[in-house]
Amino acid sequence: MTNPSLLILPGDGIGPEVMAEVRKIIDWFGARRGIAFEVSEDLVGGAAYDAHGTPLHDDTMARAQSVDAVLLGAVGGPKYDVLDFSVKPERGLLRLRKEMDLYANLRPAQCFDALADFSSLKKEVVAGLDIMIVRELTSGVYFGEPRGIFTEGNERVGINTQRYTESEIARVARSAFELARRRGNKVCSMEKANVMESGVLWREVVQRIGDEEYPDVELSHMYADAGAMQLTRWPKQFDVIVTDNLFGDLLSDLAAMLTGSLGMLPSASLGAPMANGRPKALYEPVHGSAPDIAGQGKANPIACILSFAMALRYSFDLGAEADRLEGAVQAVLADGVRTADLMQAEGGSPVSTTQMGDAILAKL
Amino acid sequence: MTNPSLLILPGDGIGPEVMAEVRKIIDWFGARRGIAFEVSEDLVGGAAYDAHGTPLHDDTMARAQSVDAVLLGAVGGPKYDVLDFSVKPERGLLRLRKEMDLYANLRPAQCFDALADFSSLKKEVVAGLDIMIVRELTSGVYFGEPRGIFTEGNERVGINTQRYTESEIARVARSAFELARRRGNKVCSMEKANVMESGVLWREVVQRIGDEEYPDVELSHMYADAGAMQLTRWPKQFDVIVTDNLFGDLLSDLAAMLTGSLGMLPSASLGAPMANGRPKALYEPVHGSAPDIAGQGKANPIACILSFAMALRYSFDLGAEADRLEGAVQAVLADGVRTADLMQAEGGSPVSTTQMGDAILAKL
Ligand SMILES: CC(C)[C@H](C(=O)O)[C@@H](O)C(=O)O
Ligand SMILES: CC(C)[C@H](C(=O)O)[C@@H](O)C(=O)O
Repeated sequence: MTNPSLLILPGDGIGPEVMAEVRKIIDWFGARRGIAFEVSEDLVGGAAYDAHGTPLHDDTMARAQSVDAVLLGAVGGPKYDVLDFSVKPERGLLRLRKEMDLYANLRPAQCFDALADFSSLKKEVVAGLDIMIVRELTSGVYFGEPRGIFTEGNERVGINTQRYTESEIARVARSAFELARRRGNKVCSMEKANVMESGVLWREVVQRIGDEEYPDVELSHMYADAGAMQLTRWPKQFDVIVTDNLFGDLLSDLAAMLTGSLGMLPSASLGAPMANGRPKALYEPVHGSAPDIAGQGKANPIACILSFAMALRYSFDLGAEADRLEGAVQAVLADGVRTADLMQAEGGSPVSTTQMGDAILAKL
Repeated sequence: MTNPSLLILPGDGIGPEVMAEVRKIIDWFGARRGIAFEVSEDLVGGAAYDAHGTPLHDDTMARAQSVDAVLLGAVGGPKYDVLDFSVKPERGLLRLRKEMDLYANLRPAQCFDALADFSSLKKEVVAGLDIMIVRELTSGVYFGEPRGIFTEGNERVGINTQRYTESEIARVARSAFELARRRGNKVCSMEKANVMESGVLWREVVQRIGDEEYPDVELSHMYADAGAMQLTRWPKQFDVIVTDNLFGDLLSDLAAMLTGSLGMLPSASLGAPMANGRPKALYEPVHGSAPDIAGQGKANPIACILSFAMALRYSFDLGAEADRLEGAVQAVLADGVRTADLMQAEGGSPVSTTQMGDAILAKL
């Protein structure tokens, strides 16, 4: 059997820095646990634009399709703000999601015990928080046609199209129900069925899949605006939340911020199983490219490292190894090791990106 | 000169209860301050559906067009969940907004000193919070065509259309800039220009209006997902936020929940000036119809009363009278008078809807 293959796309801003720490972890698994990965690296986002005039080269796209999993750092930066919409760094990421058909975006929002004080929310509201947002990632208003800026009479009009087919809704609903079975067995689906017909269809299909295929999982529905409120008020009421691409974008970022430590949160974007049984998969931290601190050794590599842990779990069926890596992160935090983003006003001095990576390696 | 006219639409759930308290306040202004309103009352939402088979009768629509201001309670309830999309209670409210062309929805999120402990956020994060969200209310995905559920091949597809013209963006941007000049002089505009062309046009037009007409107002832009995060992390960084109909729906509810007291928050929906110079206007509390507590005398009437205060300020240019009413609310809260929704676990016993109304009257 050949080694599992990984394509690494560090991207822009702090992407390369945090990914360098992940490489150390990958090497450790090869050397110490006998899990050798075939690792290749390539460009995405602004870095790809600088080299090739496109945020994702066709060769890179082809490579992403052929590996077992893609690990991405972050894309974007002010330098690229002036670029035309069609070649913005984000288009590279969106093309990967779309062409690999990564329809289920898993965004855990977990509050680490050692960091519960760090949230802007009261400790009792977030301590022990552990929810999973499943965001539809390859359809909806992100990809619907027609789209663009058109001239009508004497003015311009900006148009995007929200669009969901029954099967698109059904498959992401199944992902959410499957996850719920392995967690708290509850799914809450969010849309605006009171205002949008796409939401009416969404609600109906999720309910049908629940009734027919997952009658054992508790299912509820909530309007997305109420969802934003309830996430803020008492997030622990939720287990798995399933929602569309655009609502998922806002709600998963909101949920991430509840934990107070964006630098800690990983994500997985999964598609259908490939010939080898593994799902098409891309893993990336929730945080962005943070151009303001890029290149200064200040970035927190944990979100990216935990994204690799998700890869171990979801792509390679190495749940015990993922636990081991997550345990090392917990242990380092319990020791009080902190990058700058994890510092409270109270003081102490922060460790660098590399020092944090090394501390986690040492715990492994 | 004729008396200013008000159309009252109590609607569903707790709507009638909270509106009854507002009627007392209105009467007080007539008797004690010589500000007599011509008040009429009519049905909207489920109540209108029950009576007429439509959530807004044409006669009611015509009346709403002819008065100086509309005051609405709340619409909706589980009883109406089974209704067809086209006659759901919400359609009544949406028709009012659309046909009166109430394009600027003003949603203040203010944290009352006496209630700062009440938020799920830490006190220092929300104490003194005072932000104003200006949500576009008559366009975007709420009204764009095509929309509906269609059959394509062997499955159905749900479609909605996000659509903004330059002039729709420009007029709501002006509302936001005008408000900012009377407040903290800062506007933050939110969209997803990195993903949606309608957001690209939004950003461009807001920037142009700012540059050309309001160079004195500080303008910034944020992606809506980052906006949701920043509202959660440190909401006091904002003064006025301007955003589209759908993002505004989520973000204004999120901002409302930051204050911890949804039962306190009013809103104004304003359109273009009428012949008498007053803007077309509808005022409503941010909270919904709360069917679970309807008819029990438990509802908090303050949001609805403060909505009337907004009417005094924005429709009738009676800022000093609005201050007086808002002051009475503050005074009652400072005295520790609380409806059930404002009770902490610590105890004390709540007052009823009527008692709260009477307490505010007494302070006036
Ligand atoms: C970078 C951007 C295109 C992206 C999105 O909007 O999906 C990001 O916000 C995310 O959530 O992964
Ligand atoms: C009741 C519903 C149609 C409405 C909306 O989505 O606009 C409500 O959520 C609001 O924000 O006023």
